Amino acid sequence: MLEKIDLSKKIDKETYKKTEKEQSEKLGLLQRQCKEAGIPVMIVFEGMGASGKGTQINHLIQALDPRGFDVYANDKSTDEERMRPFLWRFFTKLPAHGRIAVFDRSWYRQVTMERFAGKIPDEDLSGAFHDIQSFERQLTDDGMVIIKLFLYVSREEQKKRFKKLESSKETSWRVTKEDWKRNTEYDRFLHICEEMLQNTDMDYAPWTIIEATDKEYAAAKIMTCVADCLEDALNKKNLNGGAKEKEVPVRSESFKAGVLSGVDLTKSISKEEYKKEIDRLQKKLEFLHSQIYRLRIPVVLGFEGWDAAGKGGVIKRLTSHLDPRGYKVYPTAAPNDIERVHHYLWRFWNHVPKAGHIAIFDRTWYGRVLVERVEGFCRESQWKQAYQEINEMESHLANAGAVVIKFWLHIDKDEQEKRFKERQANPLKQWKITEEDWRNREKWDQYESAVNEMLVRTSTTYAPWVVVEGNCKYYARVKILKTVVEALEDKIKEVNNRP
Amino acid sequence: MLEKIDLSKKIDKETYKKTEKEQSEKLGLLQRQCKEAGIPVMIVFEGMGASGKGTQINHLIQALDPRGFDVYANDKSTDEERMRPFLWRFFTKLPAHGRIAVFDRSWYRQVTMERFAGKIPDEDLSGAFHDIQSFERQLTDDGMVIIKLFLYVSREEQKKRFKKLESSKETSWRVTKEDWKRNTEYDRFLHICEEMLQNTDMDYAPWTIIEATDKEYAAAKIMTCVADCLEDALNKKNLNGGAKEKEVPVRSESFKAGVLSGVDLTKSISKEEYKKEIDRLQKKLEFLHSQIYRLRIPVVLGFEGWDAAGKGGVIKRLTSHLDPRGYKVYPTAAPNDIERVHHYLWRFWNHVPKAGHIAIFDRTWYGRVLVERVEGFCRESQWKQAYQEINEMESHLANAGAVVIKFWLHIDKDEQEKRFKERQANPLKQWKITEEDWRNREKWDQYESAVNEMLVRTSTTYAPWVVVEGNCKYYARVKILKTVVEALEDKIKEVNNRP
Repeated sequence: MLEKIDLSKKIDKETYKKTEKEQSEKLGLLQRQCKEAGIPVMIVFEGMGASGKGTQINHLIQALDPRGFDVYANDKSTDEERMRPFLWRFFTKLPAHGRIAVFDRSWYRQVTMERFAGKIPDEDLSGAFHDIQSFERQLTDDGMVIIKLFLYVSREEQKKRFKKLESSKETSWRVTKEDWKRNTEYDRFLHICEEMLQNTDMDYAPWTIIEATDKEYAAAKIMTCVADCLEDALNKKNLNGGAKEKEVPVRSESFKAGVLSGVDLTKSISKEEYKKEIDRLQKKLEFLHSQIYRLRIPVVLGFEGWDAAGKGGVIKRLTSHLDPRGYKVYPTAAPNDIERVHHYLWRFWNHVPKAGHIAIFDRTWYGRVLVERVEGFCRESQWKQAYQEINEMESHLANAGAVVIKFWLHIDKDEQEKRFKERQANPLKQWKITEEDWRNREKWDQYESAVNEMLVRTSTTYAPWVVVEGNCKYYARVKILKTVVEALEDKIKEVNNRP
Repeated sequence: MLEKIDLSKKIDKETYKKTEKEQSEKLGLLQRQCKEAGIPVMIVFEGMGASGKGTQINHLIQALDPRGFDVYANDKSTDEERMRPFLWRFFTKLPAHGRIAVFDRSWYRQVTMERFAGKIPDEDLSGAFHDIQSFERQLTDDGMVIIKLFLYVSREEQKKRFKKLESSKETSWRVTKEDWKRNTEYDRFLHICEEMLQNTDMDYAPWTIIEATDKEYAAAKIMTCVADCLEDALNKKNLNGGAKEKEVPVRSESFKAGVLSGVDLTKSISKEEYKKEIDRLQKKLEFLHSQIYRLRIPVVLGFEGWDAAGKGGVIKRLTSHLDPRGYKVYPTAAPNDIERVHHYLWRFWNHVPKAGHIAIFDRTWYGRVLVERVEGFCRESQWKQAYQEINEMESHLANAGAVVIKFWLHIDKDEQEKRFKERQANPLKQWKITEEDWRNREKWDQYESAVNEMLVRTSTTYAPWVVVEGNCKYYARVKILKTVVEALEDKIKEVNNRP
């Protein structure tokens, strides 16, 4: 999902100054409170080269009392370190209760830079992720707060910065051959980062993506994020002493990593083009359907999107040429009585397709992190841990050979209003629109924020999210069918090429 | 650790009848309470062939209201099941809130019987364990109680039972060729079970070993274990509604899996033999020490044991011929001020040996599950999760190439008293004995129970516990030096044979 994140985010001078001042004071206070409460904190800076880690660390610590923190730069390991198990250098640097340790690069080096350089064989990778997960789980179980920041710039931005650094004698040494290699092979490095993020984005130690194109935006987001995490930790510590889990308010919405804001909704195609394309794709799908049946490939397609974004229409076009014995559409409504007394994923597990079959979900298990989150139908801890649970479920499906794709049908608020009104005016479509649709619409911003977080946390290499520009229905339908066709073709090729 | 468990445990008729009646009534009541509280429960029966799973399931459910449970027998997977991801058959069988599902074999089949039959390649193994772990974590996070029972009989006992089954026409079909194969290659199957247990003994879903030689002992232990787990779940559910975590009393000590009860403390050797052997072994060690230095093998030796069991004397003999630049002894006392404000494993991480060096710990990180547990220096949840944390640390060391061995020096209560009195009488040794030693001695039973649980939960293939019969000091010293010598020789051979 990294490549879809909107990196153009900026902050204006005035808002920046205001945020800077507010968060700075807040951080100082929170540091003192964490010290009193004996809460140890680790702040990890990872990310692209020249994304400004050094500058940002420097900026962040200005707000902190220097007697209460340590900064560790983690370059290549030393001889002493290489003589010991990988985690030794980090375990020995754990902050004491009430102290803060800031890491400029960290235990993630092995699964990012070293993996890129081919120094870690693929078969060691899952062990390395496992070590990281258990390391962080052990620490957070013991009360550690782990804040993980991934500073992200585009390939072009990085190139520009490298060139600028090289142009001056004082800074040119900072750009290495390896740096340039990661720029030249940016996509490969991005993919490695993507896998790192999806394997280590745990509910007890989640990642925050920092859009680092605009330095002031990044600085403000980092301060706000750190302050929020410390505040949450203090709240939780106080609550644990008292009553049961209480909802901790979600703040700083303005700094959530955005995918939707970067979606170009003007994309469209003409009716003629649409007719031609959709006809071609449907015939193709018909053919591929028999292939996947023969090769026993299971397929899971999930559809989510705004009300009236056109899910129904797409599913109709998707299935019109398919053999009905080989696919099934599952509409997902509010859970019934039986479903309510089971694990929330149980009803979806019941509909896992057989090998060779297609299961199409009209709304999905993502209800947990969308409607249930926004409407408060589940506790905060529940939707927060759902990202990992859902990733695990989808990874299990993918490991069993399934094609798993999720579509987010995106329209803007105006387009939705237009469609709602059309539906109300058309006696044949009136049933499609209810009071609830209008109510949901009022919570647009909350939903948008939930959608953004969902897209960032659950788009994986094995089960990607595809954001579909849906203002033009024709464009949306063609994009979706095309995506499915290509995914099936890829999978068929993979299976046929197996030795 | 399986092979060290005392399988001779029995129960007398009268105690059995009493336990049976008590637990039966209790189970009925607890089932109703769990139903009211909406707690779903899964009870998993795994174990050796002919260990009596069917009989025991049948016996257990007699105590339950049949309207509230389902029993699932998990034979080889059906065609329908093979067409879907591995976990599908279990996820779809989840009990609803308030119901109990009993599994006769389960999702562990793949990592036991199928692994034994060579149906699962080694490279898929860690993925399979990972699936199991996340499956159980997802469920318990959602409030599921998972009770996992491993029914264990010896090879001889199994053989006897197979023969008996075969001797009658009605039952002979129940013994298959695969059953006999697992008996013939009992040690290999045991090793597979051992690895299964150590990879899936999580604090949220721990295993209980059922010594199944005596059917009535097993039945009583199973009932008691299930009742205890349900009671704990109810307590926790009630507590979560109210104040913070409270200590749940640990009960049913009498049914804890025992290792110590099977230790033969009469083992001894003569002074002459001792002198000859110790001399030979020390010279051998001196030679091996230079080898491991050359090959850069790190070595971690941990010593635990009863007060006055002879740890100091052993460590002296172990190190007397070693180059002091190549080893270090770390005595472990109560944590100091600095250590107290760090993670409890931090101080031990600081002493992880460099490659090629030996670290000897006189008392270890196991203090967490011994003295801290018994004396209440940490919370129940903390020592319970420590088993997994410690296993993870030791596995990290072993993966980095280290030899890791832990010794439990065992003596009986009489021997300890004798030694205490000797120390008091001897002016040169008086410093070795304090009031605290006498106080600890009063808690012998509590410590014994903690030691048994520690040995069962943390003896792993990569970092085994060695229980040392210590009433005869000569015997103990020779056994320990011999164990170290053999482990080093094995490791050196392994490293030298590496391509």
